[in-house]
Amino acid sequence: MLKSLTLHKDKRGMLFEILRSDDPLFNKFGQVYITVCKKGWVKGWHCHEKQTDIFCVIRGKARVVLGEVPFDNNSAIPKKIKFKEYILDAKHPSILTIPPNTWHGFECLSKEPIWIINMPDQLFDHKTPDEYRISLKEMPYKPWQSKRGG
Amino acid sequence: MLKSLTLHKDKRGMLFEILRSDDPLFNKFGQVYITVCKKGWVKGWHCHEKQTDIFCVIRGKARVVLGEVPFDNNSAIPKKIKFKEYILDAKHPSILTIPPNTWHGFECLSKEPIWIINMPDQLFDHKTPDEYRISLKEMPYKPWQSKRGG
Repeated sequence: MLKSLTLHKDKRGMLFEILRSDDPLFNKFGQVYITVCKKGWVKGWHCHEKQTDIFCVIRGKARVVLGEVPFDNNSAIPKKIKFKEYILDAKHPSILTIPPNTWHGFECLSKEPIWIINMPDQLFDHKTPDEYRISLKEMPYKPWQSKRGG
Repeated sequence: MLKSLTLHKDKRGMLFEILRSDDPLFNKFGQVYITVCKKGWVKGWHCHEKQTDIFCVIRGKARVVLGEVPFDNNSAIPKKIKFKEYILDAKHPSILTIPPNTWHGFECLSKEPIWIINMPDQLFDHKTPDEYRISLKEMPYKPWQSKRGG
């Protein structure tokens, strides 16, 4: 689900609310982190069993791709997936929710690296991460502009 | 309280955790917003009765000043205040907590505007904001480089 954000500009600069705890989109606060990806690179594919991600691109222009397949840890390579593509440009900020059991990856389409704020509803547990990964080669999605990734 | 953040860099870009719900600094999630301030401007002075702010400068270089005076809504102009100054540079990200009843303001020291992520523990209520304001002139703090503000 994609939601546009409102920029409040004045002579001093601007302010924009990204995520409020009274937003129907909001479930629980896990953490806030920033992930940065350079031109020519894909970060993906990732999938979480429990975690919902909430992405906000605050620098650059990203393509975020969601593969909406029921996640099955026993079947490593999904065969039939419907992909949804989102172009997220920091010039018009929005938030994108990525539900659990959704494969996702993103690439940098801008000259400058993309900066994504993620506000997942779960804490990343470094010992037992709720994160499954497959390589770009294993996923039947080929339109990436970037050649490298992982 | 100031806490340095750890940047995890790799060939694809980088990632850094800003605030985790298991951080002793963390109290409650109110919202996440970004405030942007241009060179030559101060944003301040503000004070909250209930709210703790958690600032992270992610672009540019800011001076954040805290006036540690017990807040008294009946005495509009504080006379004796101890000021603490923090230089927050996005090149070395950190988080700064600003407790309730602390006057605070910030200015942009970099050529590019500063971008601050704030993760307060309260929701901003547009109808009855927990926010008191006084002008730059009213506060006995003069070392701002910027001439304009509010």
